[in-house]
Amino acid sequence: MSNGKLILVRHGQSEWNKSNQFTGWVDVNLTDKGREEGANAGRLMWEKDALPDIVYTSLLRRAITTANIALDACDRHWIPVVRNWRLNERHYGKLQGLNKAEIREEFGEEQFMTWRRSYDTPPPEIDPDNEYAQTDDPRYFNLPQVPRTECLKDVVERFVPYFTDNILPHAMKGENVMVAAHGNSLRALVKYLDKISEEDIAGLNIPTGMPLVYEITAEGDVVNPGGTYLDPEAAEAGAAAVANQGQK
Amino acid sequence: MSNGKLILVRHGQSEWNKSNQFTGWVDVNLTDKGREEGANAGRLMWEKDALPDIVYTSLLRRAITTANIALDACDRHWIPVVRNWRLNERHYGKLQGLNKAEIREEFGEEQFMTWRRSYDTPPPEIDPDNEYAQTDDPRYFNLPQVPRTECLKDVVERFVPYFTDNILPHAMKGENVMVAAHGNSLRALVKYLDKISEEDIAGLNIPTGMPLVYEITAEGDVVNPGGTYLDPEAAEAGAAAVANQGQK
Repeated sequence: MSNGKLILVRHGQSEWNKSNQFTGWVDVNLTDKGREEGANAGRLMWEKDALPDIVYTSLLRRAITTANIALDACDRHWIPVVRNWRLNERHYGKLQGLNKAEIREEFGEEQFMTWRRSYDTPPPEIDPDNEYAQTDDPRYFNLPQVPRTECLKDVVERFVPYFTDNILPHAMKGENVMVAAHGNSLRALVKYLDKISEEDIAGLNIPTGMPLVYEITAEGDVVNPGGTYLDPEAAEAGAAAVANQGQK
Repeated sequence: MSNGKLILVRHGQSEWNKSNQFTGWVDVNLTDKGREEGANAGRLMWEKDALPDIVYTSLLRRAITTANIALDACDRHWIPVVRNWRLNERHYGKLQGLNKAEIREEFGEEQFMTWRRSYDTPPPEIDPDNEYAQTDDPRYFNLPQVPRTECLKDVVERFVPYFTDNILPHAMKGENVMVAAHGNSLRALVKYLDKISEEDIAGLNIPTGMPLVYEITAEGDVVNPGGTYLDPEAAEAGAAAVANQGQK
């Protein structure tokens, strides 16, 4: 049996990536550029023979649409699909909907980077009546409580156990699993896969629409620490762009 | 508990609907018109409050894409998805890829209508080497044998047991289930739901992209025989257009 693959794809550019707003659990659309990034991810998966047998997505449109477009482009639109809120982006609390550059200016570089990259300091909670809260969203009716804010540690705690219970076993059986998710849910996952410390994870940036592949043994171990981008040059440029978000 | 709903949607116009070719299991794309039909189906589901809790699709791109677009339009892109080959279009055998008007001219009206609408006479088998056969298609590797032709009776026999075991129980629990499928797999289903005879099913035509809703009791009985189109006028015009296929 050959090793399975985890194929991690962060959704393509969304409307709020473009307008530089904190998004979190707000369910914004992809831009045309984001759709093109999804198609490009699918073409790379096809060319590099990293074809998924099953796909997991968050419950958010930008990840779902990216997966739909990528799978169509690599002729794997017909594979089984599983969606779960545990793959969602980090909930950005009261920052959801606000402009990153304005927040940076108002609160200063240090507070801005704490909210973006601190491991265990969440932003202030969003008011349940805020238009960007998910208070009555039917997709979360089965949750005991919809989050009002999250730090990366919260994302690790909600996502990694789901990953090890549900997603990793496919790869251990030699299957290829696509994970279509978000900047911070994928950072949480990569922290686990590469055993990155709480300090060092702050410096890790995942580019949009660039398939990142981990080869997994039958025991669930990573063969290629750090993973392998299917298009390494484009991924490097993309990661630098993410790191610079919040600059005007 | 309120009654569940079955929401049946035949995929929008495909490239081969447009070019008037027999399609069957060939995995052609939607046209722009077909994508618009999918979006329209989703808007109707939204306006008429027929919102699905789960969606079943075939393994064919035209049904999958129609479902993706419709669910996005009614803000239900995040619901669970199940895909199964048993929802596929009828396999059209050796006719796959051939032009309907030319077949009609070559073989005459009677033979043409027998192949299109006979309950138990399949077209001749497709050669496994034919470019439009599914001989090495990875999505069917788990089938003991990929079909080489099917009549409507074959579709009833492969789809209805799957429907009663897997799809119907959701509606009996009061859930709304979307079924995104094909002209003949939906005819097979409607034959079962409305107890239509083998003779009378020949006259039933299902329009593309028009949600057809059956209300289902906890016992699995149909409340509204014949179902209810969310847009009855457009559905009537659409069914007439299907009946006239094969005319030049």
